[in-house]
Amino acid sequence: MNLKRYLPILDWAPKYGHSQATSDLVAAVIVTVMLIPQSLAYALLAGLPAQVGLYASILPLVIYAVFGTSRTLSVGPVAVASLMTAAALAPLAEAGTPEYVAGAVLLAVMSGLMLTLMGILRLGFLANFLSHPVISGFITASGIVIAASQFKHIFGIQASGHNLLEIGQSLFLSIGDTNLATLSVGAGALLFLVLARKRLKPLLMGVGLAPRTADILTKTAPILAVLVTTLVAWQFQLDSQGVRLVGDVPRGLPELALPSLDMGLWQQLAVSALLISVVGFVESVSVGQTLAAKRRQRIDPDQELIGLGTANLGAGFSGGMPVTGGFSRSVVNFDAGAETPAAGAYAAVGIALATLFLTPAIAYLPQATLAATIIVAVSTLIDFPALGRTWRYSRTDFGAMLATIVLTLVHSVEAGIIAGVALSIGLFLYRTSRPHSAVVGRVPGTEHFRNVLRHDVELCPKVTFLRVDESLYFANARFLEETVMDLLTREPELKDLVLVCPAVNLVDASALESLETINERLKDAGVRLHLSEVKGPVMDRLKGTELLSHLGGEVYLSTYEAWQRLTDLGKLERQIA
Amino acid sequence: MNLKRYLPILDWAPKYGHSQATSDLVAAVIVTVMLIPQSLAYALLAGLPAQVGLYASILPLVIYAVFGTSRTLSVGPVAVASLMTAAALAPLAEAGTPEYVAGAVLLAVMSGLMLTLMGILRLGFLANFLSHPVISGFITASGIVIAASQFKHIFGIQASGHNLLEIGQSLFLSIGDTNLATLSVGAGALLFLVLARKRLKPLLMGVGLAPRTADILTKTAPILAVLVTTLVAWQFQLDSQGVRLVGDVPRGLPELALPSLDMGLWQQLAVSALLISVVGFVESVSVGQTLAAKRRQRIDPDQELIGLGTANLGAGFSGGMPVTGGFSRSVVNFDAGAETPAAGAYAAVGIALATLFLTPAIAYLPQATLAATIIVAVSTLIDFPALGRTWRYSRTDFGAMLATIVLTLVHSVEAGIIAGVALSIGLFLYRTSRPHSAVVGRVPGTEHFRNVLRHDVELCPKVTFLRVDESLYFANARFLEETVMDLLTREPELKDLVLVCPAVNLVDASALESLETINERLKDAGVRLHLSEVKGPVMDRLKGTELLSHLGGEVYLSTYEAWQRLTDLGKLERQIA
Repeated sequence: MNLKRYLPILDWAPKYGHSQATSDLVAAVIVTVMLIPQSLAYALLAGLPAQVGLYASILPLVIYAVFGTSRTLSVGPVAVASLMTAAALAPLAEAGTPEYVAGAVLLAVMSGLMLTLMGILRLGFLANFLSHPVISGFITASGIVIAASQFKHIFGIQASGHNLLEIGQSLFLSIGDTNLATLSVGAGALLFLVLARKRLKPLLMGVGLAPRTADILTKTAPILAVLVTTLVAWQFQLDSQGVRLVGDVPRGLPELALPSLDMGLWQQLAVSALLISVVGFVESVSVGQTLAAKRRQRIDPDQELIGLGTANLGAGFSGGMPVTGGFSRSVVNFDAGAETPAAGAYAAVGIALATLFLTPAIAYLPQATLAATIIVAVSTLIDFPALGRTWRYSRTDFGAMLATIVLTLVHSVEAGIIAGVALSIGLFLYRTSRPHSAVVGRVPGTEHFRNVLRHDVELCPKVTFLRVDESLYFANARFLEETVMDLLTREPELKDLVLVCPAVNLVDASALESLETINERLKDAGVRLHLSEVKGPVMDRLKGTELLSHLGGEVYLSTYEAWQRLTDLGKLERQIA
Repeated sequence: MNLKRYLPILDWAPKYGHSQATSDLVAAVIVTVMLIPQSLAYALLAGLPAQVGLYASILPLVIYAVFGTSRTLSVGPVAVASLMTAAALAPLAEAGTPEYVAGAVLLAVMSGLMLTLMGILRLGFLANFLSHPVISGFITASGIVIAASQFKHIFGIQASGHNLLEIGQSLFLSIGDTNLATLSVGAGALLFLVLARKRLKPLLMGVGLAPRTADILTKTAPILAVLVTTLVAWQFQLDSQGVRLVGDVPRGLPELALPSLDMGLWQQLAVSALLISVVGFVESVSVGQTLAAKRRQRIDPDQELIGLGTANLGAGFSGGMPVTGGFSRSVVNFDAGAETPAAGAYAAVGIALATLFLTPAIAYLPQATLAATIIVAVSTLIDFPALGRTWRYSRTDFGAMLATIVLTLVHSVEAGIIAGVALSIGLFLYRTSRPHSAVVGRVPGTEHFRNVLRHDVELCPKVTFLRVDESLYFANARFLEETVMDLLTREPELKDLVLVCPAVNLVDASALESLETINERLKDAGVRLHLSEVKGPVMDRLKGTELLSHLGGEVYLSTYEAWQRLTDLGKLERQIA
């Protein structure tokens, strides 16, 4: 049982049959066709040699088939992780140098170790720190930065930078050096891909294909752009006209190797590796869960950490870059009928074959074509309407989202995501730090107590009933102190204060200390503190604390009981809301 | 009205009378007598020349009397802020050098700007991030580090370090160089102060003094130690025997000066200034509120930020170090009868007179005496029983507390406090990330629904009622997704899922997105999602969202209504808990 938890392959492999194998193989062929240009493109985006992308699409897929819990997630290089890789490595070395490649390999290994460890320790909840508005804002902003960074390849110019300001300035300064042959190839590919995305599906359906088939074929349009532009580049020797090609790619499978053990480097990359890991995990799990739900399957997020972690370790030890589950590929894999993770392993075989036999052809592939596929792919990541939706729904969530987007665009991906996380946590604590509380009075003739501001109730001048509608913890402990002190100064006649607690699910140590402080301060001022309607689990904890042994007043099971004992029934006042 | 908010002096000064002036003057004399050795000692602790401590006890007190809201808080140098100042400046310059002093001045200015700005923007809630266990652990650990750091002065040896490991090692290596004359003075002062703390009060009460007077006089014991050892040092020229004295202190009042405008320095000190500000603010407010409550007064935390902020600006511009409200001095001030902040201003006059006339005498004061006063003062900060109390009450709070203590002891004050804050926020999010949820069924014959695991209820196989007992926000949004997906795979017959929401006070954008995802996934699986008992404010927000327009099922006012509509009354099952 336990072994099955850690090796999900034991769940499906023993029952693996002929029909499943056929479905998986068909899906694998289609995914391979998508994955070849993507793995090359994302290596380019990360500033790495083309083969690094291919290497990251072989071993990791096989390992994920063993350890992953999603039946249809397509693991490999993805756009956002590639951008984050480039941003992490930029301060360390020049793109494409051996040190730079070693850094990417190390990032994959560190990310693999972190994810695997988080999975073993069941720390999947850490991903909760990334709220939806932050991750959505981050991905939109990353998409913009990625698209902007690719225009240099379309124009055939030199440009650099890791945020929109730097990239924009850099493009502006060198736009005069545009290479027209490159621009023809790049703009042509871009136009073709945009048209294919919009028009190819209706066209294919027009010639009689089923909608799903038409959809899947549309998604493989990039390979057509790659084939045509590669042929053109080879035929017309475009490199002699200044068109940058992918160039020589080592032929053959990756060799296993150990990553750098330079501890200084490990330290420098630690934060980046953590961010790449968590962002990749959140994206993978969300895609995986969406697809699994369609077939009433489910994925185990903690095991998913192990699946992605071991896949990244595989990437690192075979000279690849950080990998994660890609959204569009996974959807295609699912739609093409993949039934088990074996489809991923078959796709790995496809990429391995490409590495063995297609590299001479890949050498002629123009970089501008890859840039065009990246731009079209990331354009689907950009979700401006989400900004409007979030603004309308919640100003605080919008604040966190906007901060993430702006910082990602004008500073860096890491600053954007860290600011977003910090802000969303801070805003949440702020929201709960001022919980709703109300002075309540008795609804005449009943045992019910209601807010004096909203209902006609009975009050007793010397006894105040204060209801707090939130768990008490450090963020609102001091607020409670202030609320009570306010009450104390406003009602000089006060003799008894009853804290009505039916909505208090938790009292943490800070709130306990605050309650003790409140109790002491009230005592000093000659006021008794009482509690009523304390929930069972909260009461269990409070037993044996100083609060209860030093409490000025009593603990009442019901507020009505406190009312009967404490109020002078002859002196009630009627308050009309 | 608004002017009074920002200038609390307008509240009390117009009514200031003769009797108040008398009370304030008496308190001021006693506080001055305490403050002279303390300001010298804390300057020594911070690695600063003695006069910096005196300067920080003049202008800041006058300014606080204008802007502060506590009637009895005694502002000035305090132990923990001095330790944090030393820790912040250590990487920048050698203690006592002009660069070091300039750094301390800049810290005061930055801290002043930050606090004032936080006050104007009403950001006092930021102090909530420091939970009670973290601040308590931090102060205990700081007390230990401070006491350890002073033993070098008692033994008259050279030692350094900013955590217990470094200090311990350093003391161990140089203990052989102990100067016996210094040790005699230091150990003598220490012994006297410890005995005074334990025995002086009963002794004074024995000769007929009132308990409160005896208590106040006991707290001024350090000045006696200072007087005696200064006389001894002068009489026997102890400096010629290697006893380190305070030495020449510039005579006269501080001059106003501008702080450094070196932006690199500002950047380096920003985090430290923030931590000093927040820790000082939390301590001040907690002392201030406790004392105010005894007289049914209150303090305004946001205005308190401005009071402390302007006081620190005053400290910085007059060559002083960071200041805040001191615990023991404030209690003495209160007990001695201070009625308004004017008492603080009078104490400032006392310190100014000392700076003008007592500096020649102060030159003979042995540093060992000051170290002894520091050790005895901080020993009251160390609260080990709090560890036990927190452990018994809550393991998670204890975890945050222990991490703070250990990191402060073995690494640094800044690491300790940052780790504590991060951990307590993380643990809180973790706690709420797995909220209580229960499948509920109908209590037969009633309209009530209860947990199927605890009560005998009726169930309908194709309809599940799931109650969530927590607000829904980013930390538990994914948990909800997983809970629902689990349910979906466990109950293949499921056709309708009703989310019962009476305890949901908030649905943030992440939770909304999760609910939309859940709705879509359930639709894909052929299950309708319904909501029941959604609270008014939550419903107001949900209106107009995609969730409601795409909802597979309905929104029911009561769970019973959903039960009547959805269940097939002929096919109910009885479940016995």
